Amino acid sequence: MTTQENLKLFHDWVKRMSAYHMALALLGIDKQTLAPVDGSEFRDERMAILAGELFSITTDPRMAELRKTLLSDEAVTGDDRKMIELYDHDISKILSVPKDEYVAFNQLQNESYGAWLKAKNASDYSMFEPYLKRIIEAQKKMYSYRSSDLDLYDQMLDDFEPGMTREKYDVFFDKVKERLVPLIRRVTEAEQIDTSFIETEYPVELQKKYMEHMLAYLHFDKSWGYQNETEHPFTSGLCENDIRVTTKYLPDRPMSALLSTIHETGHGYYMHQVAPEYDGTIFNEGVSSGMHESQSRLCENYLGRSKPFWEANYPALKEVFPEQLKDIGLDQFLAALNAAQPSLIRTEADELTYPLHIVIRYELERGLFEGTISTEGLDKTWDDMYEKYLGVRASSAKEGILQDVHWADGSFGYFPTYALGSAFSAQFMHAMRKDIDVDDLLRNSHYDVIMNWLKEHIHKYGCRYNADEIMHMATGEAFDPNYYLDYLEDKYTKLYHLD
Amino acid sequence: MTTQENLKLFHDWVKRMSAYHMALALLGIDKQTLAPVDGSEFRDERMAILAGELFSITTDPRMAELRKTLLSDEAVTGDDRKMIELYDHDISKILSVPKDEYVAFNQLQNESYGAWLKAKNASDYSMFEPYLKRIIEAQKKMYSYRSSDLDLYDQMLDDFEPGMTREKYDVFFDKVKERLVPLIRRVTEAEQIDTSFIETEYPVELQKKYMEHMLAYLHFDKSWGYQNETEHPFTSGLCENDIRVTTKYLPDRPMSALLSTIHETGHGYYMHQVAPEYDGTIFNEGVSSGMHESQSRLCENYLGRSKPFWEANYPALKEVFPEQLKDIGLDQFLAALNAAQPSLIRTEADELTYPLHIVIRYELERGLFEGTISTEGLDKTWDDMYEKYLGVRASSAKEGILQDVHWADGSFGYFPTYALGSAFSAQFMHAMRKDIDVDDLLRNSHYDVIMNWLKEHIHKYGCRYNADEIMHMATGEAFDPNYYLDYLEDKYTKLYHLD
Repeated sequence: MTTQENLKLFHDWVKRMSAYHMALALLGIDKQTLAPVDGSEFRDERMAILAGELFSITTDPRMAELRKTLLSDEAVTGDDRKMIELYDHDISKILSVPKDEYVAFNQLQNESYGAWLKAKNASDYSMFEPYLKRIIEAQKKMYSYRSSDLDLYDQMLDDFEPGMTREKYDVFFDKVKERLVPLIRRVTEAEQIDTSFIETEYPVELQKKYMEHMLAYLHFDKSWGYQNETEHPFTSGLCENDIRVTTKYLPDRPMSALLSTIHETGHGYYMHQVAPEYDGTIFNEGVSSGMHESQSRLCENYLGRSKPFWEANYPALKEVFPEQLKDIGLDQFLAALNAAQPSLIRTEADELTYPLHIVIRYELERGLFEGTISTEGLDKTWDDMYEKYLGVRASSAKEGILQDVHWADGSFGYFPTYALGSAFSAQFMHAMRKDIDVDDLLRNSHYDVIMNWLKEHIHKYGCRYNADEIMHMATGEAFDPNYYLDYLEDKYTKLYHLD
Repeated sequence: MTTQENLKLFHDWVKRMSAYHMALALLGIDKQTLAPVDGSEFRDERMAILAGELFSITTDPRMAELRKTLLSDEAVTGDDRKMIELYDHDISKILSVPKDEYVAFNQLQNESYGAWLKAKNASDYSMFEPYLKRIIEAQKKMYSYRSSDLDLYDQMLDDFEPGMTREKYDVFFDKVKERLVPLIRRVTEAEQIDTSFIETEYPVELQKKYMEHMLAYLHFDKSWGYQNETEHPFTSGLCENDIRVTTKYLPDRPMSALLSTIHETGHGYYMHQVAPEYDGTIFNEGVSSGMHESQSRLCENYLGRSKPFWEANYPALKEVFPEQLKDIGLDQFLAALNAAQPSLIRTEADELTYPLHIVIRYELERGLFEGTISTEGLDKTWDDMYEKYLGVRASSAKEGILQDVHWADGSFGYFPTYALGSAFSAQFMHAMRKDIDVDDLLRNSHYDVIMNWLKEHIHKYGCRYNADEIMHMATGEAFDPNYYLDYLEDKYTKLYHLD
């Protein structure tokens, strides 16, 4: 077989997998949006069959052999080589685990999820603790089958954000603690911002009407994307030109659907703008969590909460909600939109306090896998850390250690990427502002030009390059969390008149 | 292998196929309703891959061998035997054709469809005629590979309605012509019914509001079905408890979305009410065209256009559209809803004239395959028949022979089932009225009880039995078109005061 023939076999295999990925993605979207609930048993059983077929195709030993042949062929270079390496890396992780262990782990995940759900409802950590202990031990075993030079928790971190390690995260999170803990304390002690007028009745029908305006402003075009409603907002891209974004409307929290939509379309633009030739491949599907989150956070926080953004959009909002926003000027509205306050629930946290929620999870995960922290009494450890970093303490496990599903699911190493995203965004914004007048573009409804900058400097590469490489290409330097911390310090010092 | 082991293999194979059927069905629904249009190339290519995988599984020679083994095993009886026979029958049709001929035929279908579309737009039959000729010859060849005791056109008829032949259709259609052609002439000459008030502006938003009421009346429950909008209304059932119905709203034809919804939910109830253990098998998916159409027509025409139905629903309609229906009494509304007039376009025809549109297509198809009619000059033959049977003549091929896609697609033998459906319905209604007080149930919003009768006598069997058998079981006699013709004669004699 020639190199070209082998490459054709490889790309055919990628395309075949992408057909299953697409079908399963659509079945997943449908399930969360439109599908009649009574049909779920039938559908789930068949989704499992298709997932099984995809698994067989993905782990086909003949394809492993083919990848090996191609990787030892010097004529295979550039995108081809990189793509084969990424698939090989991902699949070798799966193949490293004996099948019965893999099945047993899935079983444990299901049990653990069930136990977490019950424990959360009962707000009783002791019901979940034995499962947490078991799933940590099981993860240790699963990772032990891999051959890697990295320590255990570093491997986990690398799975979600290739290239990131404890060493790098430590530098980042130490700076976050050093600069944000005192800043948050000052904000807490300052005069509070009135947010009552965006925490009152905004009829959902009118919110939907305004959403049409917002989607147009975001240049989110129906020819390549659509928006639907769902319980938990998400974005799913079937391909470059098929981006599904969902949102949830809350009658007394009008900014929730809006900001969540700006966030989700940020993910959507990423999926839409990866180079078309990467469609249906790991280059499009494999973008790291931190990189993806950097784009959604950039849109939500750096654009969607900014003054020029609302200079363009506030008049229309006042038109749709004249009563609710009567006598509320733009600056007063913006202050409410950006108000910060330490709180207990991560998913409801504001831009300023959010990273501290992540620091707590990172330090706990790290300790759990290094053996310095035990699952026993972890609820108290959790509460103590909240008190130390944010000055708040949960009155129940439901508001404390049981709030997130991630650990129940065996996902460790994922949380840190949430903080990384926001920090990446700040550095990207800094670079972007050198090239284009972002504020002017926002003011004049040229959101598309901003998205185009992201496309040319970030999106088009997909995960052809990792975050480190893209950061260098897009900003000319390595990741530097000071851009992020400077931004937060500057913003909140002004907002709360802390000078 | 024991019989039980072989049966397990067989049922696993059926379930595996059903996973692909489900995924492809959902991709199809999505494409016609929500999917962003620019993603279609990517999706279509992957749908073709999945369809190819399904084809390989369906035609797997090992499964053909397994079916043979099972069918020669006397311990295989009842549902199992019947199901294996149906699969074997269907798949042997596919396998009979050499693969390259099959591919060439698909290619010809695509070309022919394209030519038909162009010819229709140009209203020029001569552009389509060569393709029609070729696709008829190709179909003759495709069928020649099969081993069947039936003549060519009888095989085609049997494909869409198992058990039906030219002999049986001739009896039916001769009676239709004999009784309806003169009746239609008398209706044409009678004083016409005013339909102007249902051919005026009914805002779509209000139509949607009223649709909520109608879906509740139809007991169409969100737990097992949902309704969406689309260009061409359809019903698709992923499984017993997942029925997708679509409709199209026309601003100046309010009855269009309503009647089409009653029609489509009729298909939906059939899919919903097949015995749950037949879910995902040919017993649910293989219901004949005529039987399926009998249920949708029964709901649309025999229930949805009846007086007791609107006694229950007209007050709410007047409430939503007080201006449009001002001074319009129930009887006047019903007359407009049932008005008949010969016209040129089949899909817009009323209940009375519809079967004549089908007679024309049947006689032409029959002649084309028997060699007594040529594709040359077929447009004129078509127009002559319309003039003879319906007293109307097309002024262009677009309104004449080029109006339907079926022949361009190589579908011959399908049209007759459309007329069969309505005729079956009449006989089912006659039997149903012996058991339950249909009018009283309609009046008192017990549509569910009527649907339950259909479930117990028709739906639950799926295609475990063919139409002949179900007709006998449900009505105690063979199919008799006189029920249908008596119904039409009675209804239109009264409506147009022809006594």
